[in-house]
Amino acid sequence: MTVGGIHHLGVAVDDLDEALETYRRLFGATVEHRSTVFDQGVDAASLLVGADRVELLAPTGDDTPVGRFLESRGTGMHHVAYEVADVRAALAELAAAGAELIDEVPRVGLFGLEVAFVHPDAVHGVLTEVVCPV
Amino acid sequence: MTVGGIHHLGVAVDDLDEALETYRRLFGATVEHRSTVFDQGVDAASLLVGADRVELLAPTGDDTPVGRFLESRGTGMHHVAYEVADVRAALAELAAAGAELIDEVPRVGLFGLEVAFVHPDAVHGVLTEVVCPV
Repeated sequence: MTVGGIHHLGVAVDDLDEALETYRRLFGATVEHRSTVFDQGVDAASLLVGADRVELLAPTGDDTPVGRFLESRGTGMHHVAYEVADVRAALAELAAAGAELIDEVPRVGLFGLEVAFVHPDAVHGVLTEVVCPV
Repeated sequence: MTVGGIHHLGVAVDDLDEALETYRRLFGATVEHRSTVFDQGVDAASLLVGADRVELLAPTGDDTPVGRFLESRGTGMHHVAYEVADVRAALAELAAAGAELIDEVPRVGLFGLEVAFVHPDAVHGVLTEVVCPV
């Protein structure tokens, strides 16, 4: 599969405003997008850190995917997203290579991106997303 | 602080050869460097994944930093490294911004890179490295 590189690093945090301020202060990060997506249970921001991107994810409640992640693992890195030209083609290649998929078909992710998740068991414990910028 | 972007994503794995094969097969990764560094307790490889870089870290034994990480957290993302032009200047700026540092002065990291680590408590649970490519 042809991967363009790391599209973003997803990081789970308790408090979005506080984390935004940390990344601004320590690394000069700037906010690219920010959105609260109640049906995904996240208050999210996409930050530009130099030429790359960090996606901060705070839960909108305890009983959400990010809320449950924080409960079991605490704050920290949540997923990595690799950029691909075609999410559907990438999923077909990943399935052909024997990777267990969370999403069998592409879906709309945060900030309107076309995305799909690969199961962490397929990537030695790393929750991995493939993303096509739109 | 001026950050160039993500230099690499560090990932802790059990078996370096098996993980290399996974990244090659699923993401078309190629090996940039590979080295066993006994005094740091790691068998490590730097992979190019598209335009970006993943550093795979396997422990040389249980009583090593990566061995203890695997014992407590399991395989998965271990640290993120941001590229800076000058590690010493970056440390001064991070300290001035109130960030707790693991390394007060730059040191030689894997593959000859000049590096320093920031304490995860300063970055909401993310072990963060600053790196200057040499």
